[in-house]
Amino acid sequence: MESVNASIITIGDELLIGQTIDTNSAWMAQELNAAGIWVKRRVAVGDDGPDIRKALDEESRDCPIILITGGLGPTADDITKPLLCDYFGGKLIVNEEALENVKRIFERYLKRPLIERNLKQAEVPDNCRVIQNRRGTAPGMWFEKDGKIFVSMPGVPFEMKGMMTEEVIPSLQQRFSLPTIHHRTLLTAGIGESFLAEMIESFENALPASIKLAYLPNYGMVKLRLSSRSGETGIEKEIDSRFVTLQGLVKEYMVTNRDETLEETIGHILKERNKTLSTAESCTGGYIAHLVTSIPGSSAYFKGSVVSYANEVKENLLGVRTQTLNSQGAVSEETVREMVEGALQALKTDFAIATSGIMGPDGGTPEKPVGLVWIAVGTKDRVESKRFNFRFDRKRNIDLTANNALNMLRTLVLSG
Amino acid sequence: MESVNASIITIGDELLIGQTIDTNSAWMAQELNAAGIWVKRRVAVGDDGPDIRKALDEESRDCPIILITGGLGPTADDITKPLLCDYFGGKLIVNEEALENVKRIFERYLKRPLIERNLKQAEVPDNCRVIQNRRGTAPGMWFEKDGKIFVSMPGVPFEMKGMMTEEVIPSLQQRFSLPTIHHRTLLTAGIGESFLAEMIESFENALPASIKLAYLPNYGMVKLRLSSRSGETGIEKEIDSRFVTLQGLVKEYMVTNRDETLEETIGHILKERNKTLSTAESCTGGYIAHLVTSIPGSSAYFKGSVVSYANEVKENLLGVRTQTLNSQGAVSEETVREMVEGALQALKTDFAIATSGIMGPDGGTPEKPVGLVWIAVGTKDRVESKRFNFRFDRKRNIDLTANNALNMLRTLVLSG
Repeated sequence: MESVNASIITIGDELLIGQTIDTNSAWMAQELNAAGIWVKRRVAVGDDGPDIRKALDEESRDCPIILITGGLGPTADDITKPLLCDYFGGKLIVNEEALENVKRIFERYLKRPLIERNLKQAEVPDNCRVIQNRRGTAPGMWFEKDGKIFVSMPGVPFEMKGMMTEEVIPSLQQRFSLPTIHHRTLLTAGIGESFLAEMIESFENALPASIKLAYLPNYGMVKLRLSSRSGETGIEKEIDSRFVTLQGLVKEYMVTNRDETLEETIGHILKERNKTLSTAESCTGGYIAHLVTSIPGSSAYFKGSVVSYANEVKENLLGVRTQTLNSQGAVSEETVREMVEGALQALKTDFAIATSGIMGPDGGTPEKPVGLVWIAVGTKDRVESKRFNFRFDRKRNIDLTANNALNMLRTLVLSG
Repeated sequence: MESVNASIITIGDELLIGQTIDTNSAWMAQELNAAGIWVKRRVAVGDDGPDIRKALDEESRDCPIILITGGLGPTADDITKPLLCDYFGGKLIVNEEALENVKRIFERYLKRPLIERNLKQAEVPDNCRVIQNRRGTAPGMWFEKDGKIFVSMPGVPFEMKGMMTEEVIPSLQQRFSLPTIHHRTLLTAGIGESFLAEMIESFENALPASIKLAYLPNYGMVKLRLSSRSGETGIEKEIDSRFVTLQGLVKEYMVTNRDETLEETIGHILKERNKTLSTAESCTGGYIAHLVTSIPGSSAYFKGSVVSYANEVKENLLGVRTQTLNSQGAVSEETVREMVEGALQALKTDFAIATSGIMGPDGGTPEKPVGLVWIAVGTKDRVESKRFNFRFDRKRNIDLTANNALNMLRTLVLSG
């Protein structure tokens, strides 16, 4: 059984001038993959009639499923709905259920009177199946033409996600006989892509053609993914057995053998051990606390953070000694070690993380250049600290610091 | 003078299974636009020979410039370089400068011996112009075929950005006679897209064909963008005059008339007034501090934050009264007001922001459902607080809370 191909078309000038980062496509691809649908291509086009038509023509040539997001808002720059109506040869009519939905949202959440423009959102082409939008005012539309399926959804992420989960994917599963796409993913830290590749070269060369290995590097960590979409009998057993071998080969660097983020892994191991965490962040400015608290249920193990951007906050709230700051500087081993001790005490947790560094682009000196970072992790009995020399790029340095800090914490918790 | 079109091709299975969010394309589009190059399409394909060839064929049919990212790593899943070599009819040879660069990076940063696989990174097709990579080991490649330009760059964001800024864009500017693409962008908060549209309907209808208006909604804020790529004489004056009119129409809701984020605006107004800020974050878990500190130079006005996820941290570090927590609960007006007072005192700042809410997906009760959030902002003389009822989706609730909190702060600072 071969997997079924889909193409995703994203509509909107905002994507072509770079004012919006497309996060929808990645989420859609994950969900489609899990359902056995392979995303073959993704195309972004502007709010331009001929370009949209060309994309519809081209993408449907190769793929039986075309998923379209964006261009369904109530404003004049949104041309997708009338264009689709025309492309599939229908005419716009008011859909009563969509109209009720628009009215309900305005009454319940927006608490404002409806205007003409909002009522137009309830209009749909008469030759589509309407996908009701329980989270917003623009309905989705399911068209079929020459055996191909086209589904148009709003670009607002949580509206699109609701439609995909509740209606689009279940409908596609009913329509097609889909194979299971198998993925096994593990996450490594502290080793570069090329060294990993060297380490597992013979493993990789011995893989059967139906199993693919991919390297996904991301800020000091590399994900390794085995995948198969062949649908052969026994393939799941085969991929599981290869995955066990792979884990053995990289175990020294492996963070988790689940497809999860480092902050999710941290959550699991703290919860299992019934331990608590706090952070004392200078250069990461609250980013580590944000990563940790982005995980639902994190209040079970995360108590809080002192973001000590100013030195006086390091002294007043974390008890870093004035003498340390004066003699060693804020970006120093001694400072981050005292920050860990201060966080453990002030926030009363079992573990603490501390960071201090120069993130750039400015603020470097010959002795302490941009990219210099000190990280410490510890308990009341033991503090580990490490110096890093990252390079330029503020965002990248913040990400690298957070990942390395969380990985140092992981190692410490597991060693305890 | 018409603008020149480009297409961006992104290569990598990780984009098609959703394991990576494509942030490169948005950045590239911004830079290309600023240089007068219009991104007509963006296409993502997998690590698959025929699919890559098809994309090269198709995209070069409509656009004279094709920018390609990804697929240049040292591992076996990266097939782009040999494929490009073959597509343009060249053969792989070692480039001495690229080889020196690989060696230098290993000696200086990675401090590891080179392996065969790394040396291969210095191989390039003999019929391309090599774009040296000062930030990584994979060189970029500039090909020309039938009057079309194809540039291949690594997918690692900061490596690609360096090549684009230092070599690709300057070379394209030399080659083409490029018009200026004009954008004027303002940011609004506190009003929905459809109400904005109603408010500026006649303005929009009266725009000349050469000026386009776009609505870019994002977590409780809407950007309005006027743009023109016509290259007509006088177009910049025309767009400036329309932009003045637009600002007048939406002034009640306008956050900034620059193309910047709310956190950048906050930075400007605090710096101008020489005022300092701290945050006391419960439900946002450090995200507001992260947004503020993502701006270079933020240490001039941001002192720090107490992320008080646990109630005891609210009491111990922010001085929230036990009685308040017991009688009103952590998610209450009284609590966030006391958090503001506590932050002003503990962190010694002129302004403070406090948040407390139920972000979901779990933790709601009939009286305090998921999405209930209290935000307060204040100075020692004045505290403003407001209740919000967001809906589901943890990430969205964190974003909405942060944006609303920063906007409340902006209003308070400007009113003072």
